[in-house]
Amino acid sequence: MIRAGIVGGTGYTGVELLRILVLHPQVEVSVVTSRADAGLRVDQLYPSLRGYCDVKFTLPELDNLKDCDVVFFATPNGTAMLMAESLLALGIKVIDLSADFRIKDRQEWEKWYGMQHACPDLIAEAVYGLPEVNREQIKPARLIACPGCYPTAVQLGFLPLLEAGVIDGSQLIADVKSGVSGAGRKAEISSLMSETGESFKAYAVGGHRHLPEITQGLQNVAKQAVGLTFVPHLTPMIRGIHATLYARLNRKLDLQSLFEERYSEERFVDVLPNGIHVDTRNVRGSNRCQIAVNQPQGGDTVVILSVIDNLVKGASGQAVQNMNLVFGLDECQGLETVALYP
Amino acid sequence: MIRAGIVGGTGYTGVELLRILVLHPQVEVSVVTSRADAGLRVDQLYPSLRGYCDVKFTLPELDNLKDCDVVFFATPNGTAMLMAESLLALGIKVIDLSADFRIKDRQEWEKWYGMQHACPDLIAEAVYGLPEVNREQIKPARLIACPGCYPTAVQLGFLPLLEAGVIDGSQLIADVKSGVSGAGRKAEISSLMSETGESFKAYAVGGHRHLPEITQGLQNVAKQAVGLTFVPHLTPMIRGIHATLYARLNRKLDLQSLFEERYSEERFVDVLPNGIHVDTRNVRGSNRCQIAVNQPQGGDTVVILSVIDNLVKGASGQAVQNMNLVFGLDECQGLETVALYP
Amino acid sequence: MIRAGIVGGTGYTGVELLRILVLHPQVEVSVVTSRADAGLRVDQLYPSLRGYCDVKFTLPELDNLKDCDVVFFATPNGTAMLMAESLLALGIKVIDLSADFRIKDRQEWEKWYGMQHACPDLIAEAVYGLPEVNREQIKPARLIACPGCYPTAVQLGFLPLLEAGVIDGSQLIADVKSGVSGAGRKAEISSLMSETGESFKAYAVGGHRHLPEITQGLQNVAKQAVGLTFVPHLTPMIRGIHATLYARLNRKLDLQSLFEERYSEERFVDVLPNGIHVDTRNVRGSNRCQIAVNQPQGGDTVVILSVIDNLVKGASGQAVQNMNLVFGLDECQGLETVALYP
Amino acid sequence: MIRAGIVGGTGYTGVELLRILVLHPQVEVSVVTSRADAGLRVDQLYPSLRGYCDVKFTLPELDNLKDCDVVFFATPNGTAMLMAESLLALGIKVIDLSADFRIKDRQEWEKWYGMQHACPDLIAEAVYGLPEVNREQIKPARLIACPGCYPTAVQLGFLPLLEAGVIDGSQLIADVKSGVSGAGRKAEISSLMSETGESFKAYAVGGHRHLPEITQGLQNVAKQAVGLTFVPHLTPMIRGIHATLYARLNRKLDLQSLFEERYSEERFVDVLPNGIHVDTRNVRGSNRCQIAVNQPQGGDTVVILSVIDNLVKGASGQAVQNMNLVFGLDECQGLETVALYP
Repeated sequence: MIRAGIVGGTGYTGVELLRILVLHPQVEVSVVTSRADAGLRVDQLYPSLRGYCDVKFTLPELDNLKDCDVVFFATPNGTAMLMAESLLALGIKVIDLSADFRIKDRQEWEKWYGMQHACPDLIAEAVYGLPEVNREQIKPARLIACPGCYPTAVQLGFLPLLEAGVIDGSQLIADVKSGVSGAGRKAEISSLMSETGESFKAYAVGGHRHLPEITQGLQNVAKQAVGLTFVPHLTPMIRGIHATLYARLNRKLDLQSLFEERYSEERFVDVLPNGIHVDTRNVRGSNRCQIAVNQPQGGDTVVILSVIDNLVKGASGQAVQNMNLVFGLDECQGLETVALYP
Repeated sequence: MIRAGIVGGTGYTGVELLRILVLHPQVEVSVVTSRADAGLRVDQLYPSLRGYCDVKFTLPELDNLKDCDVVFFATPNGTAMLMAESLLALGIKVIDLSADFRIKDRQEWEKWYGMQHACPDLIAEAVYGLPEVNREQIKPARLIACPGCYPTAVQLGFLPLLEAGVIDGSQLIADVKSGVSGAGRKAEISSLMSETGESFKAYAVGGHRHLPEITQGLQNVAKQAVGLTFVPHLTPMIRGIHATLYARLNRKLDLQSLFEERYSEERFVDVLPNGIHVDTRNVRGSNRCQIAVNQPQGGDTVVILSVIDNLVKGASGQAVQNMNLVFGLDECQGLETVALYP
Repeated sequence: MIRAGIVGGTGYTGVELLRILVLHPQVEVSVVTSRADAGLRVDQLYPSLRGYCDVKFTLPELDNLKDCDVVFFATPNGTAMLMAESLLALGIKVIDLSADFRIKDRQEWEKWYGMQHACPDLIAEAVYGLPEVNREQIKPARLIACPGCYPTAVQLGFLPLLEAGVIDGSQLIADVKSGVSGAGRKAEISSLMSETGESFKAYAVGGHRHLPEITQGLQNVAKQAVGLTFVPHLTPMIRGIHATLYARLNRKLDLQSLFEERYSEERFVDVLPNGIHVDTRNVRGSNRCQIAVNQPQGGDTVVILSVIDNLVKGASGQAVQNMNLVFGLDECQGLETVALYP
Repeated sequence: MIRAGIVGGTGYTGVELLRILVLHPQVEVSVVTSRADAGLRVDQLYPSLRGYCDVKFTLPELDNLKDCDVVFFATPNGTAMLMAESLLALGIKVIDLSADFRIKDRQEWEKWYGMQHACPDLIAEAVYGLPEVNREQIKPARLIACPGCYPTAVQLGFLPLLEAGVIDGSQLIADVKSGVSGAGRKAEISSLMSETGESFKAYAVGGHRHLPEITQGLQNVAKQAVGLTFVPHLTPMIRGIHATLYARLNRKLDLQSLFEERYSEERFVDVLPNGIHVDTRNVRGSNRCQIAVNQPQGGDTVVILSVIDNLVKGASGQAVQNMNLVFGLDECQGLETVALYP
């Protein structure tokens, strides 16, 4: 059994890791930390876990984590970079769900995240945990930087087009809609149901932190300079991301086949048959990305629709997928679930 | 024109007062206070008010309010009792939407609200602002204690039965469901959309602050000792309260007529025809209470359904109704709106 | 492997059976019927099942079902009673999620369901599939009548009190709130999001079909005549039932212990510790009933809160639990899931 | 008083017309038709109107409408074109909320709407009722074709840019999100809360009927050939449209001033100050379009955000605005409301 620790177990990605890991046949969740709730039983805060988890929250200290085989960071940005080095030194694998190690350009990271990087030496070593791109690098990695939720949905949608070089990469548009759980479990007026329910809005149109992460990922596979306009929106639901992606084709081709072939071996990316639209409910609670390919009126604008559950394939599920790869397990273990519909 | 001031203009009852008052033909909103946002234009925080309100938030100080004819307190409990005396001394009418002056028994109030009452001398003078019961006392009053949202829905449903003495008042049950705006515009995890959306729960089953207020109101009109079990619930919507009220009849009678006659002159209480159920959407945004009377299987249990919009008839609309009475205006002025359906 | 057939696979209980059964280690879903969609692949209608279910809808004819070991009816009322006899004659177990065999009194059934019973001979044999009451009768049964959603939540809440004889059974009140999926996947204006979203209402206050079912179940365990007022409500969410149950105690006792002991061996009924409220989100997608016991102000009114997911413990999950019992499997197989929170 | 008739009074745009008109000081609603509900009191179907509307539904026959000054068609497409000619012949103004007279190219209309046009002679005369573009033509008109909901939000967002000729009109993208009331009050599975709640999806990506209407409107003001990619989405809320519009600038300019000046005299178009995002809740229930102008990272892609309430500025409110113009009233009469927030 793999002994797993979760640092930051009270947020939504933390409790989602618990939901997945307590049923994972190869994992034992041995440590869950919370500075605020140390001493409290985990299932007292989260009654959905009663009968599945009998540990108590502990303080996020090295000594509490030292017997783990793997430690997940489900923390705000800026925490993993303080502890990663010590954990790695103990031979513990680190899977970071926050943004600390996602951006290779340290200055770019510091600009967007507004703090100094506390552990720049590990940035280069960290492997960006998008298995559909980096599977072979992930397997031997010690430190995984799990992609953000928006970046996962957007990259999986654009990748086949950029890898094939069939679009103008300089004028990409990603109009993306997220459920409110993406804002996390934080006491903020802007996330109240009275503020977000029955309403729809864009936010951070001037610039969102996921922009440099997406651009980096797209640039890595593109044969040209990538230019992206990324507009995130908040939609009145809890889980789900729907990316609507626009690009200009530079040649005629069978788009449907391009996508189906690119993802034919991927068990968590599902290209829908021509003419079927994606819907976030069809991936709710599952680790799947579903994609639909459209070419309205047969013109030269391609419209890709890509949906994920932001807490699963966009965070905790993808983290477990990475863990499975790192520990040589079947990539799907613990992740075989059918979306909760309706 | 009546010059109105609003103390605590950034919460939901405050902005709802603004929504109503900026269109009231006899009122000019001259002061809106906010400790946190003083100096900011009101319509910058609330873009829905652009073009209707050009004042800025000011500090909640007596000097800023001294030219008002009426001051509304849309504040947390414990604020109105600190300022009411000074305002009254200036000849300003005070309409308090908080709970400070609702309970006549000071010790009871202090027990439930967990603080010492700062202005006990005014408790007796304050008139409980439920016009359907106290209209004549409201008209000459200087200080109005507006009823809470739950108390309004529950009292209007039970009153005809208790006044007529046709039920056993010792075993009343009020199972009441509220939208989440009742929790206010406060940064609390429990009010996040991720916590309250797509879920339903009871809360404060052991005892809610509105219990003594409701009991006091019912006892005032009852011919017997009142015993009430009150269970509030949170329902995943923003506005609306639905009270389901249960009592045992002690005689046979025409319940429908009893209710229709009791409220025949009331312009904000609407008894639906027999067989039609109430629905919170049918009062959303309006100052109305709609009531349906049921006697399942013709048995001796009466089931009253009573709905209001918690922010209108349950708070700001009722406050304006009181203001109209106090200033000798048509009781409906500024309150003639049709619910927003769908 | 148990070969399972589902009659009526396009409704919400049908697709929920699929969600559970495609991951059940002992079951192969070999037949899914739909009169309207025969010939269509199941996963074309329900893309959430892509990769998990490769059968097509077939017509609901005996010939298509004859190789099944068990057939589930996820049909409107009135269908199972037409086919049950033929299936049983072939040695096939029948698990009916509709109401056809729930009520032992045929005339009562015909009154509430407005049709003649087509198969009265089997009514007596059918076992009411509430394992927490009838486990031993379920195991050898050929025909299971699965409880309705409201009846499951209400009975599990009242049972310990009635079995112990500690309440006045003649004045029970069940104020129950359901998500909209309980109305099924039917094209009806009353179930549109524009009609049910952001609104709350009671319905069928005069009499709901689940009333005789609940009363029959409670009467079976009570030592006295049972009288119940049952008021169902529609709450603006998709899944979940919250029952708020009221009764008068006839003696002093430790209610918390009563409930904990009654359900100590039940793996799908979870009595929360004193002081914790239930919340439908904590059972969403799981086969669990969570119960909280309250005695407001230490009075003689007991308030029981009981939540289930109406599509799981209230329908398809409970059906699989029954199947597990009938086939001698671990009662929990295929049902070990953690609720989807948030 | 203007005597108004509403043909098709049971749908959402019909009941929204009623909500507005019953409070309009210059209008008396004298006829409301419904084929299905003729004979029923309007307020029996819509209890929100109790006390405001005492007419009954009548059959949609000319004889019932002949005393009206104006008739609104809140009908499905294909009805207004059958009755308009007769009504006009009686001197009655016709305001059509359906699509019958919106498209000037008859063949184009017939292609998208899948029927033959029954009244082609009136197509040329009909005035497209977008006052911000056609105010002077609307005033003397006999027949108004009210714009669709999507077309209103999209056109108001793109117009200043196209009129000024500052963008490349051949590569416009409109990514638009609508609440579910846009689908109307029709018994369809796809509009159930269980299908649309807690989920987000695009639809009709291959081609939506509003595409030719939007293109026609944009082309009328553009100095170049217009090419538009229009992707509508369904968002889990009842009211509101949020258009996110993308275009490439062909020169540097002060976009904020361009928009503020273009709409400085428009009372129902509100350009927000730089840096404030729009939110559909801020126009809910009001006849306003709020617009925000963005130029991410100072690049050459302009992002316009435009929100309306689809049932008000996107349908019934705009219809009343047109009526006010046609009858020489203040354009704002009956439309002075503040959005319902929260």
